[in-house]
Amino acid sequence: MDRESSLAEAVEGILESYKQHGNINHIEATALPSKSRVTELLDDLLDLVFPGYFGEAPSFDEESSRYVIGERCARVLHDLTRAATRALRTVRPVATPRAELELEAQRAALSLLGTLPCVRDVLDTDVQAALSGDPAASSAAEVILSYPGVQAIASHRVAHQLYLLDVPLLPRMLSEVTHSRTGIDIHPGARIGPSFFIDHGTGVVMGETTEIGSRVKIYQGVTLGALSVRGRDGARGRKRHPTIEDEVTIYAGATILGGDTVIGAGSTIGGNVWLTRSVAAGTTVLLDAPSLLFR
Amino acid sequence: MDRESSLAEAVEGILESYKQHGNINHIEATALPSKSRVTELLDDLLDLVFPGYFGEAPSFDEESSRYVIGERCARVLHDLTRAATRALRTVRPVATPRAELELEAQRAALSLLGTLPCVRDVLDTDVQAALSGDPAASSAAEVILSYPGVQAIASHRVAHQLYLLDVPLLPRMLSEVTHSRTGIDIHPGARIGPSFFIDHGTGVVMGETTEIGSRVKIYQGVTLGALSVRGRDGARGRKRHPTIEDEVTIYAGATILGGDTVIGAGSTIGGNVWLTRSVAAGTTVLLDAPSLLFR
Amino acid sequence: MDRESSLAEAVEGILESYKQHGNINHIEATALPSKSRVTELLDDLLDLVFPGYFGEAPSFDEESSRYVIGERCARVLHDLTRAATRALRTVRPVATPRAELELEAQRAALSLLGTLPCVRDVLDTDVQAALSGDPAASSAAEVILSYPGVQAIASHRVAHQLYLLDVPLLPRMLSEVTHSRTGIDIHPGARIGPSFFIDHGTGVVMGETTEIGSRVKIYQGVTLGALSVRGRDGARGRKRHPTIEDEVTIYAGATILGGDTVIGAGSTIGGNVWLTRSVAAGTTVLLDAPSLLFR
Repeated sequence: MDRESSLAEAVEGILESYKQHGNINHIEATALPSKSRVTELLDDLLDLVFPGYFGEAPSFDEESSRYVIGERCARVLHDLTRAATRALRTVRPVATPRAELELEAQRAALSLLGTLPCVRDVLDTDVQAALSGDPAASSAAEVILSYPGVQAIASHRVAHQLYLLDVPLLPRMLSEVTHSRTGIDIHPGARIGPSFFIDHGTGVVMGETTEIGSRVKIYQGVTLGALSVRGRDGARGRKRHPTIEDEVTIYAGATILGGDTVIGAGSTIGGNVWLTRSVAAGTTVLLDAPSLLFR
Repeated sequence: MDRESSLAEAVEGILESYKQHGNINHIEATALPSKSRVTELLDDLLDLVFPGYFGEAPSFDEESSRYVIGERCARVLHDLTRAATRALRTVRPVATPRAELELEAQRAALSLLGTLPCVRDVLDTDVQAALSGDPAASSAAEVILSYPGVQAIASHRVAHQLYLLDVPLLPRMLSEVTHSRTGIDIHPGARIGPSFFIDHGTGVVMGETTEIGSRVKIYQGVTLGALSVRGRDGARGRKRHPTIEDEVTIYAGATILGGDTVIGAGSTIGGNVWLTRSVAAGTTVLLDAPSLLFR
Repeated sequence: MDRESSLAEAVEGILESYKQHGNINHIEATALPSKSRVTELLDDLLDLVFPGYFGEAPSFDEESSRYVIGERCARVLHDLTRAATRALRTVRPVATPRAELELEAQRAALSLLGTLPCVRDVLDTDVQAALSGDPAASSAAEVILSYPGVQAIASHRVAHQLYLLDVPLLPRMLSEVTHSRTGIDIHPGARIGPSFFIDHGTGVVMGETTEIGSRVKIYQGVTLGALSVRGRDGARGRKRHPTIEDEVTIYAGATILGGDTVIGAGSTIGGNVWLTRSVAAGTTVLLDAPSLLFR
């Protein structure tokens, strides 16, 4: 068979497949938020919470900042309204008028902009936690520019606000951009207190109903997950992920599971520990030495 | 020494080094597949298997889909033929005529397009597995747009077809693009059954000769690897990685090693377990509680 | 409240927040190295150490290589001088004349170019280690194009030279670009001997004062970290991370902590082991089998 007819046959086969598997097509459907636009939106939001760090031009001065920031906020308002309208469309009745979705999306976008000062209040404590938690850190600029844990918590605190505003789909898309960049996977639903620091961070997973107190420090590869999943409807809405109280440190590779699991304040969880029950305040949990075999 | 002569000296030093380490140069050699082109090719292929999800424009309708898809298939055929020609050149005798390589590459590219409907048949089951396996998942759009595990298995199923078509180099380049994006490292040789779901996924590694049954679920940080490596020639071609039977769940951070290791159907492997031997069907393997020390 | 006044109010709130949290602003300040420029710089440097592998055009020949390489070196000299000047500005007294910083930055950039032949000497051994260490590897082109471990060590060996030249900020920014791409987080201060191979690599962490001998092999998820952190000033400058002697293999997920911890030559550390003390040469450390519970 020649090239042209082979290609034509392949195209027909693919088109036929689109008819058969309707649930993994998005044809004859309204547009979804675009991944590349959501990525740009996240970068604009990070520019707003950490002004002057990421651009290529010399940093703006105080006089021009009203214009720079005003323009950036207007762009975020426009792009976020557009993306949130598309996201809302996926969960609202088909007949919902576009104007109604847009108004709801715009309200959420304005609310998000309004929360950024509070987000910055908390991020200030996170940057301090990174500086005091890592002996290798030497300046705020260094941790903001090059610490994946700081990038992840900044992105999360913004995505979490969108989650609280009940915007569907978008918070998870934002968190996934950050997961892809940093290896840190924080569900936008997770509630995280101030002065939070993730060091290194690759492989960290924190589920939707995780709750974390103040001054908690987490290393790479830590999972705060669900103990088991017994079917969607039963589990959704229940608290499925652990609670970590104030001033807990969790070392690399530890896995803590279950919605009833509470790690008491001031506890230390050692590396590679697998824990599915609560521990009292001030407990240290380690892999017991005899579990190693030397030969 | 002034800037200009220092630069000239550095350039000479580097050129001299190119003469000495011939095996890490690619000078006076035919072009290799380009990393950025391979990335675009992967995105086109993902657009073909999940139509309408990733673009910025409103989704196309059924009437226009023949043209949109036909154009996309023609571009994949062109780009894949070009990349596969370059890849084949690296393993064929130098004297092989270009036309011969191109014909072989074109045949592989057409075959790949022909397999996409079957790839979609299986991906439909994977998307369903993600939806039913994660209580936090709310729609096919959400898991296709934002679940790294779904992105990884879609990319793998396409790369695996290219691997079966004996195209060198390219399948591994495709899988590495996905590894970089998702933290999930599946060798294109791995054989994976339907309804497969990787949750979170950062740090997952699955070796070349891994075999996986139906309805298997894997969490972040799981390694399905080789037990040991005793020299290239001896090991290549042998089964070096585990077999996972139907309906097995493997929790975060578990490491399962060895080509003779079989995890029997319906088994559950707990988090952080390190396992180098087979377990019978229906077994649950956990880290024993006493291995933890509380104080 | 209408859209315009809501937006204006949000902008004012954000500007107000910039006044309150001065330490997470970079306003009225000199420009920092730009993340996107640092990424391009890294790619140019990788092109210099592995010539002919990454471009889209057919590889250059020996005759044209002087011009291609000369132009690339001149660009690196320009871009690196610029970025290093900005980085030096963050640690020098405000009054330091720009010309003085530029001269220092240029000297470092020229020195870096001068070390690239030595960097290539060692990278040659690393590529050989990847080829002989992985039965699935079939050519130097394959490992250079698609092995994240090879990308990570190449990037590290360059960033480490900049670290030795006392350029602030930039080495860490370079290593973080690679961390984001590969999931491998090597602090630019780590000292690593020849014939080093990281397989798969996602989740690997190696701290600033890590020392690694020759022919060491490391798998995904391995941490070489600090045992504990007792405050910045006390800890900074001390050796806080392990020493790994020649011909050690460390399997997936092992965590080795502490500046006094020495893993003796020829040792093997099993998967998921958590180790905080030295082991003698030739030791094998495994998770003890009884720590698993089968039921």
